[in-house]
Amino acid sequence: MIATSNRLSDVKEYYFSKKLRAIKILEEQGQNIINIAIGSPDLDPPKQILSALTNASILPQANGYQSYQGLPELREAMAKFYKNKFKVNLNPKNGILPLMGSKEGIMLTSLTFLNAGDSVLIPNPGYPTYTSATKLLNAKPIFYNLTAKNNWLPDFKTLEKQDLTKVKLMWLNYPHMPTGSVATDKLFIQLIQFAKKHKILLINDNPYSFILNDNPTSILSFPGAKDVALELNSLSKTFNMPGWRVGMLLGAEKYVKAVLQVKSNMDSGMYFAIQKSAIAALESDENWYTKLNTVYKKRRDIVWQIMDKLHCSYNKNTAGLFVWGKVPKQTNGKALADYLLEEKQVFVTPGFIFGSQGKNYIRISLCETENVLKTVLNRLK
Amino acid sequence: MIATSNRLSDVKEYYFSKKLRAIKILEEQGQNIINIAIGSPDLDPPKQILSALTNASILPQANGYQSYQGLPELREAMAKFYKNKFKVNLNPKNGILPLMGSKEGIMLTSLTFLNAGDSVLIPNPGYPTYTSATKLLNAKPIFYNLTAKNNWLPDFKTLEKQDLTKVKLMWLNYPHMPTGSVATDKLFIQLIQFAKKHKILLINDNPYSFILNDNPTSILSFPGAKDVALELNSLSKTFNMPGWRVGMLLGAEKYVKAVLQVKSNMDSGMYFAIQKSAIAALESDENWYTKLNTVYKKRRDIVWQIMDKLHCSYNKNTAGLFVWGKVPKQTNGKALADYLLEEKQVFVTPGFIFGSQGKNYIRISLCETENVLKTVLNRLK
Repeated sequence: MIATSNRLSDVKEYYFSKKLRAIKILEEQGQNIINIAIGSPDLDPPKQILSALTNASILPQANGYQSYQGLPELREAMAKFYKNKFKVNLNPKNGILPLMGSKEGIMLTSLTFLNAGDSVLIPNPGYPTYTSATKLLNAKPIFYNLTAKNNWLPDFKTLEKQDLTKVKLMWLNYPHMPTGSVATDKLFIQLIQFAKKHKILLINDNPYSFILNDNPTSILSFPGAKDVALELNSLSKTFNMPGWRVGMLLGAEKYVKAVLQVKSNMDSGMYFAIQKSAIAALESDENWYTKLNTVYKKRRDIVWQIMDKLHCSYNKNTAGLFVWGKVPKQTNGKALADYLLEEKQVFVTPGFIFGSQGKNYIRISLCETENVLKTVLNRLK
Repeated sequence: MIATSNRLSDVKEYYFSKKLRAIKILEEQGQNIINIAIGSPDLDPPKQILSALTNASILPQANGYQSYQGLPELREAMAKFYKNKFKVNLNPKNGILPLMGSKEGIMLTSLTFLNAGDSVLIPNPGYPTYTSATKLLNAKPIFYNLTAKNNWLPDFKTLEKQDLTKVKLMWLNYPHMPTGSVATDKLFIQLIQFAKKHKILLINDNPYSFILNDNPTSILSFPGAKDVALELNSLSKTFNMPGWRVGMLLGAEKYVKAVLQVKSNMDSGMYFAIQKSAIAALESDENWYTKLNTVYKKRRDIVWQIMDKLHCSYNKNTAGLFVWGKVPKQTNGKALADYLLEEKQVFVTPGFIFGSQGKNYIRISLCETENVLKTVLNRLK
């Protein structure tokens, strides 16, 4: 076999794909496993996206290559969304790049800004893809520890003590996954100062803004942010469209243009009718958000009860699609997750997969119905 | 501004995006430009894909994250397509990876196999994306010259004279774009021997197989190919679905699996309803191909007349979506293309954009109606 590149040697198989295979075997043996581990929204997307899809698909221009930049009207809808929701002004001509999901944006921005040997600040705990994109480009992850004590916000004293000369990018993700922690305004202001001082590009991955969050915030709303920050957002969680693959990169023209240069060499614009559906979703009125969060609130109440039953402690003042629970002292996240899968046929996420700072935690998703969550509760009785 | 990575310094803006901006300005000045430069199929895709899209979009599983590997039934449809059309047996479980267009496959395979400093054999003339993906990863393009004399097939004597020790990949693209040259069986057999001898992975980019080609061929149909070759294919040209972004990577499990490892860290599976539409397209019967080529044949007749009018010489025994014409001795491809745009308001592709070997050529696309092509002919009278 012709050898693969070194960049692969350090990138492991995604925990979930391995675990889901094991679960499939258990199910084939007759076990009834309840999966409350994964954050894939189960609720319906806005109804209007389906008619938008069908109506757009029959137009003559629907089948041809689309612009790398997406339709102007999609960029305008995204600009309006950012203006309405975050009070952020973006130029729809060059300050917004539609993406096939924000996950694509992690790799694209890494490709755009990282040389081999550069360093990247990555939250621990955090979304594993920041690390794998970094490693795929032979850049070096430097993990910054988040702690419950500091409400899972970065500690600048510790950050400043590190050698930051080779750091090019810093990944942020507020509201934070997996902990649900919400950033303060003060934090964003400090981060912008920090980034300016050390010439680091901040990228805030912001897909959870609208889930159980009273105060959706974009890093781009703070003074000076556009000089040193980009934001990624997504329709996956806000509009229950994860499989449609629609995300966006937002920020200053100079940065967005550089990412577009990479993107234009890698893929093409997304399917016309999906872009039209995305516009329809972005135009949802306030009711959409209220209804969505009413459902998640009820589910979260039950998940809190599950956490109580497991003697896990948790913060009620969090946002996002998950509850993050600290396990009792005599166990750890992996042991508790294994126990729940083996003894109760319930699959939860052990916190260690998000980094060492997560090892005494488990994460439970709100993407299952109240009935399913109640069944879990019953199994624990 | 925080600097972009070195990988960008060597990647230029795509010729077409620059030229199309200039054309837009001419049109705003009132000129009626006819664009016969670009290979974006204008014909309708198979009708059944639209109902497949609509029907699939309303299913409950349509909105969620999809597997990185795509639906099993999509991989099975792709396997059947390769079996029927190319007599190639592929394991739908692990020998096929659905892609968001074959262009994505160029970057993915480059990421999977290339270290910085590796070399890559790239055809001159050839599709510019092979070069930009290579440069984006700080690998080194080594161009192998194709000549009309050798019917645009690689010359092994010259290839063997080069230092091949650092070569990891070799891009092939038969039927060849831009020349339309079709590979012989002997060539594929020689290429496989060459690749085995020098431990080079061949990737045949095969999107033009079914356009004006009496004998569609996959490199994977030759003995030993799977040890040293992958193939990329696409629904863009065969089914007039370029904007839908559906392609595929095909070959031995060991290689496909490695590419999947990279892909799973970069994006997610494609939209469920698009996968269902792709299945519907792949199930088209023989009539589809006959009808498609009847239209292209008529158009090509007119393009040949255009080439005659321009005193360009061309090979009638070619495949694909373009006619590749050698310009008269007293001019070159760029000068003729500029003249046609300025004096006749006709946009054709100058061959130099595919490499130095294309500099005395122009390329005309078959993606315009007979009427439009006849208007071009009239403008030249």
